Amino acid sequence: MCGIVGVTGNDRSVSILIDGLKRLEYRGYDSAGIYVNDEKGHDYLVKRSGRISNLEAALTPEVKGLAGIGHTRWATHGVPNETNAHPHYSNDERFYLVHNGVIENYQQLKEEYLKGVEFKSQTDTEVIVQLVDKFVVDYKMDTKDALLKVLRLISPDSSYAFALMDREQPDTLFVAKNKSPLLVGLCQGYNMVGSDAMSMIDETNEFMEINDHELVIVKPDNVTIEEFDGTEKKRDSFKVDMDPSAADKGTYPFYMLKEIDEQPAVMRKLVQEYFDSDDQPQVSEKLLQAMAESDHIYIIGAGTSYHAGLIGARMFEKLCGVPTTVHISSEFAYEQPLLSSKPFFLFLSQSGETADSREVLVHVNEHNWPSLTITNVDKSTLSREATFTLLLYAGPEIAVASTKAYTAQIAVEAILAKALGEYLSRDAAQNFDLKHQLGTIANGMQSITDSKEDIEALASRYLSKPRNAFYIGRGIDWSVSLEAALKLKEISYVQAEGFASGELKHGTIALIENQTPVIAVITQDRTAGLTRSNLEETQSRGAAVLTIVSRHLAHEDDNIIIPDVDELLTPLLSVVPAQLLAYYTSLGKGLDVDKPRNLAKSVTVQ
Amino acid sequence: MCGIVGVTGNDRSVSILIDGLKRLEYRGYDSAGIYVNDEKGHDYLVKRSGRISNLEAALTPEVKGLAGIGHTRWATHGVPNETNAHPHYSNDERFYLVHNGVIENYQQLKEEYLKGVEFKSQTDTEVIVQLVDKFVVDYKMDTKDALLKVLRLISPDSSYAFALMDREQPDTLFVAKNKSPLLVGLCQGYNMVGSDAMSMIDETNEFMEINDHELVIVKPDNVTIEEFDGTEKKRDSFKVDMDPSAADKGTYPFYMLKEIDEQPAVMRKLVQEYFDSDDQPQVSEKLLQAMAESDHIYIIGAGTSYHAGLIGARMFEKLCGVPTTVHISSEFAYEQPLLSSKPFFLFLSQSGETADSREVLVHVNEHNWPSLTITNVDKSTLSREATFTLLLYAGPEIAVASTKAYTAQIAVEAILAKALGEYLSRDAAQNFDLKHQLGTIANGMQSITDSKEDIEALASRYLSKPRNAFYIGRGIDWSVSLEAALKLKEISYVQAEGFASGELKHGTIALIENQTPVIAVITQDRTAGLTRSNLEETQSRGAAVLTIVSRHLAHEDDNIIIPDVDELLTPLLSVVPAQLLAYYTSLGKGLDVDKPRNLAKSVTVQ
Repeated sequence: MCGIVGVTGNDRSVSILIDGLKRLEYRGYDSAGIYVNDEKGHDYLVKRSGRISNLEAALTPEVKGLAGIGHTRWATHGVPNETNAHPHYSNDERFYLVHNGVIENYQQLKEEYLKGVEFKSQTDTEVIVQLVDKFVVDYKMDTKDALLKVLRLISPDSSYAFALMDREQPDTLFVAKNKSPLLVGLCQGYNMVGSDAMSMIDETNEFMEINDHELVIVKPDNVTIEEFDGTEKKRDSFKVDMDPSAADKGTYPFYMLKEIDEQPAVMRKLVQEYFDSDDQPQVSEKLLQAMAESDHIYIIGAGTSYHAGLIGARMFEKLCGVPTTVHISSEFAYEQPLLSSKPFFLFLSQSGETADSREVLVHVNEHNWPSLTITNVDKSTLSREATFTLLLYAGPEIAVASTKAYTAQIAVEAILAKALGEYLSRDAAQNFDLKHQLGTIANGMQSITDSKEDIEALASRYLSKPRNAFYIGRGIDWSVSLEAALKLKEISYVQAEGFASGELKHGTIALIENQTPVIAVITQDRTAGLTRSNLEETQSRGAAVLTIVSRHLAHEDDNIIIPDVDELLTPLLSVVPAQLLAYYTSLGKGLDVDKPRNLAKSVTVQ
Repeated sequence: MCGIVGVTGNDRSVSILIDGLKRLEYRGYDSAGIYVNDEKGHDYLVKRSGRISNLEAALTPEVKGLAGIGHTRWATHGVPNETNAHPHYSNDERFYLVHNGVIENYQQLKEEYLKGVEFKSQTDTEVIVQLVDKFVVDYKMDTKDALLKVLRLISPDSSYAFALMDREQPDTLFVAKNKSPLLVGLCQGYNMVGSDAMSMIDETNEFMEINDHELVIVKPDNVTIEEFDGTEKKRDSFKVDMDPSAADKGTYPFYMLKEIDEQPAVMRKLVQEYFDSDDQPQVSEKLLQAMAESDHIYIIGAGTSYHAGLIGARMFEKLCGVPTTVHISSEFAYEQPLLSSKPFFLFLSQSGETADSREVLVHVNEHNWPSLTITNVDKSTLSREATFTLLLYAGPEIAVASTKAYTAQIAVEAILAKALGEYLSRDAAQNFDLKHQLGTIANGMQSITDSKEDIEALASRYLSKPRNAFYIGRGIDWSVSLEAALKLKEISYVQAEGFASGELKHGTIALIENQTPVIAVITQDRTAGLTRSNLEETQSRGAAVLTIVSRHLAHEDDNIIIPDVDELLTPLLSVVPAQLLAYYTSLGKGLDVDKPRNLAKSVTVQ
């Protein structure tokens, strides 16, 4: 359950909702729906399984209103069909609710308060809307108080962003959140709510934050904020500078290919943003001071961001001499290792909205530990709540499978490690000619993306048929193998695994059959020979082997040769052929490259 | 290339070699071969692809001799056919060589010295034997000097255990090693060499170590040891107490099932070996002192041992308050993170022979850092070379897929953590009633193995058809998921992956299709609800879900309920159904459960 949007006070409500949902589709596309009404008692509910385009096609001209709510779903409870699509509503058809998050105690609430009530869906959301109705109708509470009572009954480990409508107060959006993101958008003569700023960007660039455990009442001409005990709160709005047209895919068949091709430009943009005219990295001294005072860097990330963290950790250790470990957000959130006495937390999140990472950040802030978010989205939740932010400057990433955000994350980590290492007077950092290397890398990326046809042919030859595949490597090449395998999994549905090449023989090599693809990443002098031995072990068992190799380590029969760069920076190049292999495998199978099944771009549930 | 054996001075040579090879089959079974000769110039070479039983069937009565060498192979270079099987020999059929290891610079040696020589196989080993012949025949060197010259030409990153025979000195075994294991066996009136003590146990219990970079000449009545510069060395022999009959599978169809069933007995044996009559754990005070003086424990392991280390790390952190991290041997060997100032190294290896781990231990010993090996094999290489040893007392583990050694490793880690925690006066350790818990666990294991029929039915229903599967869990349940998935991979060839359940949605969930099996391990109070939510997310996408749950967390429709024990010890129970699921899946497919394709029990190459 992932993207929500609401509007009140505008007769273009339906199109405002649809446009907002399209911008939120990265949060899930299992089903979608809207509810709109007006002052005269007309109202309409339309829901469809699948993409927003299905919903849009189902809208007839009579569907219109002055206010409404919309939802695009990533299924957590119940199959992604029309019945389970949002908005959900009470059996008397008075209350309508959209929800992003998970109510952990919904079964218990259902058993305790809603015995005998008939449910149309299997969702936790329907329990909430039926419960509000119950308190209003049976207990004679007013809507606001009923909602407040429900919010207090929801267990604190639950997550939600709610927008509730009551047919009897058609111009009012009742809004609340815990953990899940939600913003108010302040427009001219009308108002909105949405899961992110981008969902409202066509209507306004002025927004207001909502904190956890507040009830916000949004009307066409005013917005009031209350705590659960009734205390009213004032809050300033803020403006965001975003270009809605940057998210256009132009002549590309898919966003993913466009975003792969944008990587050289992103590298150059980062050089421009982060280096001064003396080729020195520019990072806030306060940030460097906070990091220098810490004794251990904990990098927190999920999925691709976790993989980017694995590369970054090596840089902070080698260039700065600061012990650094990398942790999966959802694991770290519920079980920390023994922490050092002066921890510094570095969050990696393309969207800045990853719920698993935010769970960790809440804990970090409770301890007043310093933190940094490296993200692509300014003013995103993780950016607002961390002590420091560094931006990726990668431009909107629309394809679900991350490409340019991964390489931008690595480049920003390198810039930060270089700056911190210099701040700490480390020789390794002073000798690290990063600005020049990033230029070389931008050109190297370009040369790889220019050889698309060769990579397409390899994808077709090695990956079009098998159901499984392996990427192997040692050290930093292993970290890249994890990301490379994830790309292949995400969009081509090949069950790929990234493996430390020395570890394969301790069990997993049993899966190698005749023609199983094994792709080796070989960029490190010290381990190149060992990885080649491991590759031969798989070849002895019939594997179809393929290599991605740095030029100076290349043999005659290697498949993909990448330019030579500093050993710490090879992932910026070695991952690019892997991105293209995944892209062409998916394309060759006729799949929707940008929107793979089951996934959402930004995972805002735990 | 993995198990070697040699004998000189006994007319039962052929059967001694065959019996030795059978005991070495755990090191690989891609192909096997023997070479025998006698004083009168008769000699025989027999090789077959596949198991030792193929070789045995090919032996005719005239194949006999007074001395010989044998080999069972795990293929690293070249496909596992008869041509690539050992022994390899020179083109003039004078020299015969068996080899365990990898010669990294064999291509270079071939190009430099053996231009124009015709090769029968694709192996590195044949290069070595042809090279010895070249130096003897063309350069007129004697055999010993020729071998010494070759040994000096081999690059230091290579690994080998060699046994070489020269037709013109039929009673002599020329033996040398680097990294790969090799022992001399001292018999009555004859002598042997072998990759481990077990391979010679039917003939003797008295052995002599061979160090790296020594040339050892074994004759029927004497053994001489020289360094490469010709210096002679004296060495004492040692005795090993082993029971050759413990490795008999009795009425079981496969060793694996027998070994799964032995786990309760192993738990009881560990209680008996490690606890005194006051229920206090007995661990050498010197070991506890060395650990107490360290500031960080580094656990090193590969495959299943790595997974056991993940469990142990939590125990050392929670019961002792000592920061502990776990590392894959083959990764740590070539790239260490920044180490603490007083590291302590804990090696986990069932066989005590894992080459990847030994590579790390060599480095550790160069720095004089304290170390402990937890192993099933007394006097194994890792046991001899580490500062301390704790034994698993699990009895011989013959099936390639480890079961009782994994649970024994976890139990010994728990005993050590309890002892260390008490030594450090930690409350958590003092309150940890381990002896009683291990008794409960032994009974719990028994109750799970008693319900084999239920688990067989689940394996047949969920796992017999799909090509892929997932195990998911959080925290310690994630660690078990990794091991559970590895079991399934190793013996049933289902591409299984163990996943942190919160991480699945960050990409890998794209692989979930209708009826993909997803097995959740749920034993931890804090995360049980979250894992169930993640399981529902997969069910929404059509997954066939199956649960392994601690009794107090069980719901009505859970599949496998395990008894309640301390949260740190749940892996000892939750892994048992996973072992049985893997076993019955493999059995149902008609596979060789004990000897899965491509694998070897003990991985003695890197």
